[in-house]
Amino acid sequence: MDQAFITMPKGFKANGVCADLKGNGALDVGLVVSDVPANIAGVYTSNLVKGHSLTRSIKVINKGGKVRAMIVNAKNANAGVGPVGEEDAQKVAEAVASELGVTADEVITASTGVIGIRLPYEKIVAKVPELVSGLSSSEEAGHKSELAMMTTDTQPKEVAATITLKNGTEVTIAAMAKGSGMIHPNLATMISEFTTDADIAPELLHKMLKEAVSHTFNRVTVDGDTSVCDMVVIMANGVSGAVIEEGTEDAALFQEAFTSLALDLSKMIASDGEGATKFVEIEVFGARDEYDAYLIVSSIAKSPLCKTAIYGMDANWGRIATAAGYSGAKFDPNNLSISLCGVQMCKDGVSLEFSEEEMAELLKAHDINVKVELKEGDAYDRMFTCDYSHDYITINGSYRS
Amino acid sequence: MDQAFITMPKGFKANGVCADLKGNGALDVGLVVSDVPANIAGVYTSNLVKGHSLTRSIKVINKGGKVRAMIVNAKNANAGVGPVGEEDAQKVAEAVASELGVTADEVITASTGVIGIRLPYEKIVAKVPELVSGLSSSEEAGHKSELAMMTTDTQPKEVAATITLKNGTEVTIAAMAKGSGMIHPNLATMISEFTTDADIAPELLHKMLKEAVSHTFNRVTVDGDTSVCDMVVIMANGVSGAVIEEGTEDAALFQEAFTSLALDLSKMIASDGEGATKFVEIEVFGARDEYDAYLIVSSIAKSPLCKTAIYGMDANWGRIATAAGYSGAKFDPNNLSISLCGVQMCKDGVSLEFSEEEMAELLKAHDINVKVELKEGDAYDRMFTCDYSHDYITINGSYRS
Repeated sequence: MDQAFITMPKGFKANGVCADLKGNGALDVGLVVSDVPANIAGVYTSNLVKGHSLTRSIKVINKGGKVRAMIVNAKNANAGVGPVGEEDAQKVAEAVASELGVTADEVITASTGVIGIRLPYEKIVAKVPELVSGLSSSEEAGHKSELAMMTTDTQPKEVAATITLKNGTEVTIAAMAKGSGMIHPNLATMISEFTTDADIAPELLHKMLKEAVSHTFNRVTVDGDTSVCDMVVIMANGVSGAVIEEGTEDAALFQEAFTSLALDLSKMIASDGEGATKFVEIEVFGARDEYDAYLIVSSIAKSPLCKTAIYGMDANWGRIATAAGYSGAKFDPNNLSISLCGVQMCKDGVSLEFSEEEMAELLKAHDINVKVELKEGDAYDRMFTCDYSHDYITINGSYRS
Repeated sequence: MDQAFITMPKGFKANGVCADLKGNGALDVGLVVSDVPANIAGVYTSNLVKGHSLTRSIKVINKGGKVRAMIVNAKNANAGVGPVGEEDAQKVAEAVASELGVTADEVITASTGVIGIRLPYEKIVAKVPELVSGLSSSEEAGHKSELAMMTTDTQPKEVAATITLKNGTEVTIAAMAKGSGMIHPNLATMISEFTTDADIAPELLHKMLKEAVSHTFNRVTVDGDTSVCDMVVIMANGVSGAVIEEGTEDAALFQEAFTSLALDLSKMIASDGEGATKFVEIEVFGARDEYDAYLIVSSIAKSPLCKTAIYGMDANWGRIATAAGYSGAKFDPNNLSISLCGVQMCKDGVSLEFSEEEMAELLKAHDINVKVELKEGDAYDRMFTCDYSHDYITINGSYRS
């Protein structure tokens, strides 16, 4: 869907304003609000060190009540500043709650950016009236809330889908995300918000969210670094009138659409990884078990040597074999086969002849596929990443400034 | 020692020749020979995928006999080409053996370079007579054997030490190594050769080698990638007349010198990592146990975000906290303290004020120290690495060409 935006489901409004956090006049505080109390589910970074806006939100979500709003700021992670960090996040939540006429426990907070500098919460609080008064369900307002949470992203990441339930009711799901560095799986990999106008009970919503992220957001890596602020949340407000119950055909339909949107966002995040010039899909077939399959795709996806070779458009399959070999997975190297962009480079551990000219041409493509085949079992996994370019170094050599 | 070279211990000769493997007229085949049969011990890459010259050498060393020579070629890894790979390595060993008048089982083979292209063994075999006839114990010949195995190294890495045993006998140990990419611990991290004129039984030699590498070569990372060809070997020929026995003061003295040389080479390898502009030492204090200490130093040392920040001379301690947090080690983030170049950035999980000007000045230094302190126990570990620069990307985007 070309013109997707977060407020497409019924009963959601959004806005984005500039609170002068980025310092360049760009939008940097975004808000998404449900007209009525919405069920919420979230998954969070597995990093031991967690940002304070996030730890506050986890506490709020764990209380189990419904929520009305989620506010996100860019440029400052509100992390590593001690107990004052949660207090600052609470002040932001209170300002939003007061302006909306709800309680602070109905407001989720998220922050992304630099660690270790106190959140300039006064700047945000001062902009809350403008943020709330501009709330709208328009496409423009939806896009503004996405733009406001982008950091090094070069492209907005917004998706949506409408499904028709068995009884004919239409349900819409929309989502947006920000990348694009410090990204690695086994966590919710970045900040992403989903909205839906279906009514889904919190337990089912959480179950569906975990299923949706497991082979999507949890299979994206940009640099193997796991941020302290990452979360994926979904707000379900029921305004469509549709109630989705566990174990029904409707639930299966919803899950399919949900997972598919998560997959689309995941690919967008990988493709827009910091400094990326390529989107890379890595697949492993025939691994001994699921864990070994994961070890192999993740080892290749993280390998700086594989990622720089792809940047350099070099058919260096030996680095792929090397990364598989040190992944910790068990396999017989004499049964290892590797294909790059559909061309088999190595079969049963032995290199094959290939045309350097043909490979150079194929490797010019933006989308690169790496296939690894073993003969240990039938486990499969897949991961998405990008290449490592000179720009990755430039972007990350001076991120704080 | 400024003028160290591999033939400093008594009874060793070396040489290096150009077999046109590198294609630029540089030396690319090196040989080290002991005048008499020497005991040998080796440690090898933990990668499942192993190069064929290496697998052949492992078999030869595991037979337990003494050896006379080690031949190393650069530019071609002799890996991923199937059974013919070991046959090619054997042909090289036989050519050396024939020229020296010894058996092929007395010749260790090692290769480093590109994976998946058959070893041009005829080129090497054709040069063996020149290689052997030029053998010498001279400083120049020693240096040539080091230059011949360098790939992307910018500096030769040669060290030596002489110790005096209790009975007054002098024993010399010399060593050389090549780096400088695809380097990560839990393996022998690169190719390194040690020689000594002490007589040390194979079991003790192996034990000493394992001890020497454990906190030196096994604590260097350049890019987290683990090569398929790595090995560290020591040849002990006994020509000094000194016999070193297990459990003696002499053994302790030898171990100390041995480990110290391994440490020096390890620092040289990190410092000369591909594209490196900085040498980085990462220390953790107060971890729960040794394994957690290792997880933390290795997570920071591998983090592309930490490494690019150091390249950019950016006091971004938040990335260090982040890498510690996702390392898998267990600790309370509220007890986490971090120092960079001797300046404390974060104490008990809370950021401290610091002068950006002072940090910018300190981070201009070539040697950068990162200290992480926890309050979980008393385990300590240390790792050596380098920064990630634009040149790392340039070097690795086009390594095969």
